[in-house]
Amino acid sequence: MQTENYPHVVIIGGGFGGLWAARGLATAKVRISLIDRVNHHLFQPLLYQVATAGLSMPDIAAPLRHILRRQANATVLLNEVSAIDKANRRVRCVDGSELAYDFLIVASGARHAYFGHDDWAEFAPGLKTLDDALVIRRRVLTAFERAEAETDETRRAAWLNFVVIGGGPTGVELAGTLAEIARHTLRREFRRSNPAAARVLLVEAGPRVLSALPEELSAKATRQLQRLGVEVHTGKPVTAVDAQGIALGEQRIAAHTVLWAAGVAASPLGRSLDVPLDKAGRVVVEDDLSLPGNPEILVIGDLASKQQDGRPVPGVAPAAKQMGTHAARAIRQRLRGETPAAFRYSDAGSLATIGRMAAVADLGRIRLSGIVAWWFWLFIHVLFLIGFRSRLIVLINWSWSYWTYQRHARIIVGQKHAGDG
Amino acid sequence: MQTENYPHVVIIGGGFGGLWAARGLATAKVRISLIDRVNHHLFQPLLYQVATAGLSMPDIAAPLRHILRRQANATVLLNEVSAIDKANRRVRCVDGSELAYDFLIVASGARHAYFGHDDWAEFAPGLKTLDDALVIRRRVLTAFERAEAETDETRRAAWLNFVVIGGGPTGVELAGTLAEIARHTLRREFRRSNPAAARVLLVEAGPRVLSALPEELSAKATRQLQRLGVEVHTGKPVTAVDAQGIALGEQRIAAHTVLWAAGVAASPLGRSLDVPLDKAGRVVVEDDLSLPGNPEILVIGDLASKQQDGRPVPGVAPAAKQMGTHAARAIRQRLRGETPAAFRYSDAGSLATIGRMAAVADLGRIRLSGIVAWWFWLFIHVLFLIGFRSRLIVLINWSWSYWTYQRHARIIVGQKHAGDG
Repeated sequence: MQTENYPHVVIIGGGFGGLWAARGLATAKVRISLIDRVNHHLFQPLLYQVATAGLSMPDIAAPLRHILRRQANATVLLNEVSAIDKANRRVRCVDGSELAYDFLIVASGARHAYFGHDDWAEFAPGLKTLDDALVIRRRVLTAFERAEAETDETRRAAWLNFVVIGGGPTGVELAGTLAEIARHTLRREFRRSNPAAARVLLVEAGPRVLSALPEELSAKATRQLQRLGVEVHTGKPVTAVDAQGIALGEQRIAAHTVLWAAGVAASPLGRSLDVPLDKAGRVVVEDDLSLPGNPEILVIGDLASKQQDGRPVPGVAPAAKQMGTHAARAIRQRLRGETPAAFRYSDAGSLATIGRMAAVADLGRIRLSGIVAWWFWLFIHVLFLIGFRSRLIVLINWSWSYWTYQRHARIIVGQKHAGDG
Repeated sequence: MQTENYPHVVIIGGGFGGLWAARGLATAKVRISLIDRVNHHLFQPLLYQVATAGLSMPDIAAPLRHILRRQANATVLLNEVSAIDKANRRVRCVDGSELAYDFLIVASGARHAYFGHDDWAEFAPGLKTLDDALVIRRRVLTAFERAEAETDETRRAAWLNFVVIGGGPTGVELAGTLAEIARHTLRREFRRSNPAAARVLLVEAGPRVLSALPEELSAKATRQLQRLGVEVHTGKPVTAVDAQGIALGEQRIAAHTVLWAAGVAASPLGRSLDVPLDKAGRVVVEDDLSLPGNPEILVIGDLASKQQDGRPVPGVAPAAKQMGTHAARAIRQRLRGETPAAFRYSDAGSLATIGRMAAVADLGRIRLSGIVAWWFWLFIHVLFLIGFRSRLIVLINWSWSYWTYQRHARIIVGQKHAGDG
């Protein structure tokens, strides 16, 4: 193809934002370079199921270059961008290579953040990547093994106490699933310890879980969590996390397995753009998602701070996809000499799953909870998985888990038998 | 259950030998402790498919305690045995704990070995565990990514050269599958480099590949490998392995991806038994698989050196299973005061798969090759997978790969983007 003189669009990040932007430019007369640190697009909403051994990695991840193989104008590069040079329109990668761009879409997302307590990271891993999920899976499964090997009752209890910090969707999902694993999945498998004696604590500093949803649904979610066996603690911040457990105000809770779902911070790339950031480190963008003063740069997804009708556009998959599609359209408009329209987030509602047959959904006028919400959640998530194969396999795996209470991916890998540090 | 006074059988290793021994004691009046370093039983014959991204980990691995959950007399312990104290009938674990036994079954298997070249391990990873498989998967997939990023033709070629050392079944499987990945799976996915230009070299020091099979089948295997695009080099030993590639006699081959399938050595536990070992470090056992001088200790699987009709019993899954079953029977016989019979390996034949629609089988009077042997191999391997779920999922994954040429598990994980050392 004679595309060498086409404008070069560099996209940083192959998540929902970046991938949807690339797809939105499929028929445009541009050359696209999509750069990601990992080789796969990840269906993040189901990542907690890999962490809790319900799904395998490939069920929710597919190689970016496979997804884009038929899009001839797109090149996928496995690399990590370290800095953006606005003045010279170049991005620099960690391996020293540089890439010149005509348009830049920054979609590098967010990582979990410990709000000034980086020393907690060692004891309370967060969940953003497949590597994170394998670490959490290893720690959780190893904790039950340690409990089985432990002869001292007090020490055993510390291995059977699981603390999830953060009552957002990820925290709720993790806590609900951990309770199911302890009470059902591991039944009859241990001879000395009783997994069903495990305590699962969900700890939220704010007044309620799922604070993005209406109060009524938060209350319902709390009741569903409690029915699954989760102890919900709200209104008290965690003040310490170490190898022995956590401190919740004055109270110490002994627990060797602590998971972090309390917060995210935007990708540090935002800082190299040299524009005002919001307090979560996100880039405050123009109405059309462009960078103030640099219309050729668009910032989308979790890295973008955008207000709409007095409220922030949430950091969820549908928003990232819509922003990606908008960024692609904005570039096509600029190439035609038009002025891009303002971005508007179309909110189809919020969904959060809690565990077996338990979920809540806020669809504007309609609010669902319990088993109806759960089926709805299931349907939506299978529908949006990338690739027919994933959909089929995930459906089979879920049906299997549903009937047998089993979680097939209970495989511990990793050199260290972690949970030991 | 009033089982506390039952004799204690300790089984080291949850592979085919150890697991079949535990199952063979299901109805015996014994207490069983099965110790393994990992939490899962691994269907080793398909491990190369995890390494080459055709299957996910849980497809070929299941938690040992899940497999044994209904066998009330069996306790599974996640631990690693460091030494065996024959005199006091105790095993010692790396965490310092000790276990007394009445009967001991040592089924700790083998690891790959570099025959005095341990410095090669860093550059040529071997394949024995799921962790090994993830390392190989990461290196292979990353090599194609590096080739895409490389602008220098010579350096790119070194990323597209793949060397498999060792022409046994694992080496043949890896080489055949790598050729398929390069020629078919990655087609159309790269924009700058051409994966089909990759060279896959299978290097065997001996005169022919698959030396355990009749010469006729070795020759057929070689032709099938060549048809898939593998260069087969026999009769020359590898004399050097480093970050730049290998030396084959006088000839240097530049290759950043080198895989080791050249040999195994028995588990080091054999040494702590203080009896004669064969040159591969295996324990020379009595006719009933017991340790010379210690009838209460049985050594089985890849760790056992046993001659039958002037030939060694091969280190294959059927032999390990038969030994496990025999060891269980021997213990039951001893408990009844009987003398255990001699072990006899019943050889059902040898099978080796090569790649898409290519395999060879030696079933005694019948010899198969090509597509017939491949279907036979496929049928046998699905049949022997543990658990109906795995069989179903593997069948779906294989059908999918067959029709689409795709390998769904092309997910790179691991902190390091390896292939860089």
